[in-house]
Amino acid sequence: MSEPVTVAVDANGADLGPAEVAAGAALAAQRGHRVLVFGPAAEIGDVPAGVEVIDAPVSIAKSPEPARAVRSTPDASIVQAARAVADGSADALVAAGSTGSALAAGLFHIRRGRGIHRPALALPIPIPGAPVLLLDVGANVESRADHLVQFAYMGSAFAAAVLGVDEPRVGLLSNGEEPSKGTPDVVAAHVELDHGTLNFVGNVEGTSVMAGAADVVVTDGFTGNVALKLMEGVSAALMKAVRDQAMSSNRAKVGGALMRPALVELRDEIDPEGPGGAYLLGLRRIGVVPHGRFTRTGFANAIDVAAKAVSEQAVERMHEALEAAGALRGASERPASVTG
Amino acid sequence: MSEPVTVAVDANGADLGPAEVAAGAALAAQRGHRVLVFGPAAEIGDVPAGVEVIDAPVSIAKSPEPARAVRSTPDASIVQAARAVADGSADALVAAGSTGSALAAGLFHIRRGRGIHRPALALPIPIPGAPVLLLDVGANVESRADHLVQFAYMGSAFAAAVLGVDEPRVGLLSNGEEPSKGTPDVVAAHVELDHGTLNFVGNVEGTSVMAGAADVVVTDGFTGNVALKLMEGVSAALMKAVRDQAMSSNRAKVGGALMRPALVELRDEIDPEGPGGAYLLGLRRIGVVPHGRFTRTGFANAIDVAAKAVSEQAVERMHEALEAAGALRGASERPASVTG
Repeated sequence: MSEPVTVAVDANGADLGPAEVAAGAALAAQRGHRVLVFGPAAEIGDVPAGVEVIDAPVSIAKSPEPARAVRSTPDASIVQAARAVADGSADALVAAGSTGSALAAGLFHIRRGRGIHRPALALPIPIPGAPVLLLDVGANVESRADHLVQFAYMGSAFAAAVLGVDEPRVGLLSNGEEPSKGTPDVVAAHVELDHGTLNFVGNVEGTSVMAGAADVVVTDGFTGNVALKLMEGVSAALMKAVRDQAMSSNRAKVGGALMRPALVELRDEIDPEGPGGAYLLGLRRIGVVPHGRFTRTGFANAIDVAAKAVSEQAVERMHEALEAAGALRGASERPASVTG
Repeated sequence: MSEPVTVAVDANGADLGPAEVAAGAALAAQRGHRVLVFGPAAEIGDVPAGVEVIDAPVSIAKSPEPARAVRSTPDASIVQAARAVADGSADALVAAGSTGSALAAGLFHIRRGRGIHRPALALPIPIPGAPVLLLDVGANVESRADHLVQFAYMGSAFAAAVLGVDEPRVGLLSNGEEPSKGTPDVVAAHVELDHGTLNFVGNVEGTSVMAGAADVVVTDGFTGNVALKLMEGVSAALMKAVRDQAMSSNRAKVGGALMRPALVELRDEIDPEGPGGAYLLGLRRIGVVPHGRFTRTGFANAIDVAAKAVSEQAVERMHEALEAAGALRGASERPASVTG
């Protein structure tokens, strides 16, 4: 067996409190990972077996200006966790609190990977029967064509290395399937990807995404973030409407009750805690950002995914894919003969 | 009683054929509107009562380059219909075929309203209990801040004049609720709208849109089109998942059967034919673009909405709102004293 992977976890910011994050860390430790938890020792209480708690009570999870907070608060738990990854005490980062502070601390301390324009936040969307890795869902507001191209290679390499997808089908989110459709940046990225080394399936629209047309879907951080929240909103509204209708008559009530086990099964299938959160790609190490409302199960899954990314060398594979395609920043041009 | 409104209808391009569109026109004629139908007389057959059919068999509904097709095909049905509106033979346009050719013919023949940067396509999203007018859903690919501002005024005036919404709450689709969130164009539009004359509720995210936070939601045509198709995709995928689960066991089958009437009611409530289609705003006359898969009911509703927009002077009210807010193109600056 190889050495256990060490994951640094920021325990501040979770809705259920730092003790729930620590409980998730304990679950992950049982799976063979070494976990360093940065958070308020007093709130965590008894240190769970297999977990090392570093007392770090200062939280910047709710800061409205994460970048400034990261610089001005060196003892913040997320900053200490990111520094542990940067100095090699840990191999990957899990941030249970805010995406903004995780991104800022990651950029400032772990730093961008060599040749990477911008990191991206990749979220696995648990579509029943057709899971999709969507990126960027909000690390950036605007994304140039060469950023989109890098997102495509990073997402594809991560899906192959960590999510077990063989030759992931990569699509570019656009307002039409024809290569000419999209903003100028989308159209330019399409041309690059079409000549690249990925299993590129071209532009995809929302309807085909939900029907499983691609494993990895690439978009700019603004559109991706808007899309993500719309999907959440539509799901919630529809499930509520179905529930309301199920209560609308005695007949429907009985029907709803009979269907409940099947609907619970559906809910479990689209459980957002399963994939462990969003993946922060493009730094020198992998970050995983579980949702603040997760329970210990979700936090344990986040640590699991981060550890798997380390043992599967996701960062190295992303770099190799980008290099082979000539898509690293500063690459003078595409190599004459491209080999994956 | 006022004079009947005359609506020019392009009957080419509908999935069920020109006769179905003509049948919709007949329904609309029964409601007191005068309808000119441009399409292949041979396929329409017996002319329904109250409808005037102008034989126009040439269709450019499936053209991949609508702008070029509009210029090179003066006898195309959509071009003849748009010309009828432009020369005053009709008061508004309904295009049953393709959005692209309707937009191109509208721009070329009906032309942009005075002081309007770009027309926008506004789609009423039939969210149960909280209908929303979303614009732009694809008339443009990129939208500058001053375009977004005009969309907001046009959408608000249309919702008030035609959809019966009193002082519509207008939101700006973004990746966060804070005014600082969004692309530079979204942030700049936010500032303008915050100082404007609308009932502006600020930035909205997908989750709050689906929860009814705004009556009119403004975004660029790329994001709006992507959002629209994602909403369609998520709805279809979820309804399918619920249906599949309802067939997953005998118990669930009985439950599904008992719930069916309630679910049919829900489906009727989110019937896309109800609002008649998407509204083309920003031309000198109103256009309505029903979906190609509509039945006669949807086409009749489209004609109805177009006629109502004429009798309620929607174009004039949009212009007045834009003028009062100093948001017309070429307006030197906001007037010192703004009156709605």
